[in-house]
Amino acid sequence: MFERRKPIPIGEAVKRIMEYQLLGVTEQVTINESYGRFLSEDLIATSDVPHFDRAPYDGFAVRSIDTREAALTNVVEFEVVDHIGAGMVSTKLIGEHQAVRIMTGAMMPEGTDAVVMFEVAKAYEKNGIPYMSIKRSFKKGDNVSYSGEDAKQGEILVKKGTLINPGIQAMLATFGYERVTVAKKPRVGLFATGTELLEVNEALVPGKIRNSNSHMIAAQIERTGGIVHYFGKLPDEFDTCFEAVQNALNEVDLLITTGGVSVGDFDYLPAIYEKLGAEIFFNKVAMRPGSVTTVAQHNGKLLFGLSGNPSACYVGFELFARPIIRRMLFSEKPHLRKEQALLEVDFPKANPFTRFVRSSTFIDSGRLKATPSGLDKSNIIMSLSGANSLMILPGGTRGYTAGCEVEVLLLEDQVGSEWPW
Amino acid sequence: MFERRKPIPIGEAVKRIMEYQLLGVTEQVTINESYGRFLSEDLIATSDVPHFDRAPYDGFAVRSIDTREAALTNVVEFEVVDHIGAGMVSTKLIGEHQAVRIMTGAMMPEGTDAVVMFEVAKAYEKNGIPYMSIKRSFKKGDNVSYSGEDAKQGEILVKKGTLINPGIQAMLATFGYERVTVAKKPRVGLFATGTELLEVNEALVPGKIRNSNSHMIAAQIERTGGIVHYFGKLPDEFDTCFEAVQNALNEVDLLITTGGVSVGDFDYLPAIYEKLGAEIFFNKVAMRPGSVTTVAQHNGKLLFGLSGNPSACYVGFELFARPIIRRMLFSEKPHLRKEQALLEVDFPKANPFTRFVRSSTFIDSGRLKATPSGLDKSNIIMSLSGANSLMILPGGTRGYTAGCEVEVLLLEDQVGSEWPW
Repeated sequence: MFERRKPIPIGEAVKRIMEYQLLGVTEQVTINESYGRFLSEDLIATSDVPHFDRAPYDGFAVRSIDTREAALTNVVEFEVVDHIGAGMVSTKLIGEHQAVRIMTGAMMPEGTDAVVMFEVAKAYEKNGIPYMSIKRSFKKGDNVSYSGEDAKQGEILVKKGTLINPGIQAMLATFGYERVTVAKKPRVGLFATGTELLEVNEALVPGKIRNSNSHMIAAQIERTGGIVHYFGKLPDEFDTCFEAVQNALNEVDLLITTGGVSVGDFDYLPAIYEKLGAEIFFNKVAMRPGSVTTVAQHNGKLLFGLSGNPSACYVGFELFARPIIRRMLFSEKPHLRKEQALLEVDFPKANPFTRFVRSSTFIDSGRLKATPSGLDKSNIIMSLSGANSLMILPGGTRGYTAGCEVEVLLLEDQVGSEWPW
Repeated sequence: MFERRKPIPIGEAVKRIMEYQLLGVTEQVTINESYGRFLSEDLIATSDVPHFDRAPYDGFAVRSIDTREAALTNVVEFEVVDHIGAGMVSTKLIGEHQAVRIMTGAMMPEGTDAVVMFEVAKAYEKNGIPYMSIKRSFKKGDNVSYSGEDAKQGEILVKKGTLINPGIQAMLATFGYERVTVAKKPRVGLFATGTELLEVNEALVPGKIRNSNSHMIAAQIERTGGIVHYFGKLPDEFDTCFEAVQNALNEVDLLITTGGVSVGDFDYLPAIYEKLGAEIFFNKVAMRPGSVTTVAQHNGKLLFGLSGNPSACYVGFELFARPIIRRMLFSEKPHLRKEQALLEVDFPKANPFTRFVRSSTFIDSGRLKATPSGLDKSNIIMSLSGANSLMILPGGTRGYTAGCEVEVLLLEDQVGSEWPW
């Protein structure tokens, strides 16, 4: 009756999953659809930026050679022969002591090599012809933005695997990427198991609870960057159930089940894995919560058997499913970002196994601090809402006191870790 | 020719905008559409959690009174009269020295008040009838999760204005929120101005650049939680342009323009505000970049005239438009979150005005540190891609040295500040 499972260390469990190479796939979307997606190719400058010499300020474009003699005691006068705004190109040939009135961003007229800002010039008219004069000299290049100053054509500006943010959107537009090559969202299938589960729209009855895990995991999949295929509750009958899993596997890259993976009397996931002939990577991990997590592989698809316990389910997804999804999004840092923080309160509970405590991590006067976001009872979903991190409390200790240094895994962060274990 | 504008302090500029109450609107979405939206009502527990007494572990439900005499030297035996999994309800009446085999999550059978975990029980059969025995006593409530232990019906569990995360999804499901009341996404209109602007699909020509600001701001609007209405480039002709702005105002809550707001010779936004009869909150702010930002109000709609300079445009949106959008999303902390960090490198530039430097803020051994993410030239868009924060360098200083404490505004954070100024 008691199947004995051998727990393996967390790092080893993660390693077994990550050694199994699920490769990301690329697709093209329009620039307007690309915010929040992951680049699957490096972003390369398709031209210099700026791609012409330009004025970074409003002023007068001049030949610096004509300003050489200008000084407080020697006013030098220029005839203003043209007037251009950004986007305009002067067609005038600029001769000795001639200037072009120029606005920020406009292309430097041919022959000019410096910009006199309005503030240091005096503008006036003589017989209806505009002039300006200065009392100081300018060097070649003064107040000029040179072609290629910000970026050179061919330069790699952003590495693949990067989440597209507003700044990257600006760069994509600058370089004419009307279509953007991004990682296709991995398709993640989701089954719930458990005769105790009601749908969200069903009324409560004694002994039954609403299925919250599926909604939670669906949001975790979205947060990670995957796309959710919810297949509903697995049927109670074994053969129908087996067929449902087999069919679902054809439609997705990863298949997640919640519940039914334990050694409880009504847990039949292990039998399904066996009948599939799936290769089991592990079925027990030395951690709390989530020790009964099972991960397996079948015909190139990964199966994640997460616990039906909400906290264990949450942690299991983040530790085991997230990194493989992020890898498929071309990330070089697919794991949750790990940082050090000071424990804010005592955590007196003894820890035979490494424990992941849902926590609120915050910054206090520039220092990272963390506090458990609820009582650490494994069936409490309430504490999940305020959690932005998982505190790692290594096993084999008698508890922790406030002020201790602890490690935290940041849940809402997009930077990630290469390998936190 | 030179319009003289009076710059006002940043805090005063933000205050003038926030005093103008644009109210958020509520809408209902299905739970499956609600991830990433903002709650516009407090999330209230519609039942106790758990809503029945249940077993938190696999084991045997017993009457604690029957275990009183059990000890290492006194084995007490129980007849196992039923066997239930989660979601099942035992119909048996439990008598003296009777037990029910029970799985995690199942409802405590009537009359039982403690659970004996499998590990401390010995299970066996006598004449085909299942029995178990124990060598220790249990108290009433041992290993029982009581109704209401995690949440009480009527309790406020999450405040309105909170971004819905995976944990909140779980709670919404638990409490049967098939439809969720969320903030309607504010409609933010967007116009670009500038004869120098090419569309993303146009080839570069001398003097012209592709319009990157609109794509950048569109992504910033999305990141903030608004919905983008892009109206394209404003026409060059004043009357057509005025009409376009007037019509757009009818379709949106906020209208953002980029460029044309300065005092350059081709900037006609000020004339549009004048002809509209808009109430100007300010048209110059004592800050760099972004000093020429204009914010106005007309018929209950806010107009944001952001600079055409990419960095100024970016900063102007985050400081002035973001908080009003977040307020419309019912947030109590609508401003960018402000934290203290250590400056990683020297920043020798003198600062007559408060400067916002695009920065990369990171955690090093539990301490927040920040470093400018590119050269601080106001026309460089490259530095925007790596920026996750804006460093605030107060005006009236001669520069800063590495190791200084500086303040940073976090761009990717969802917590926010109540009032950072």
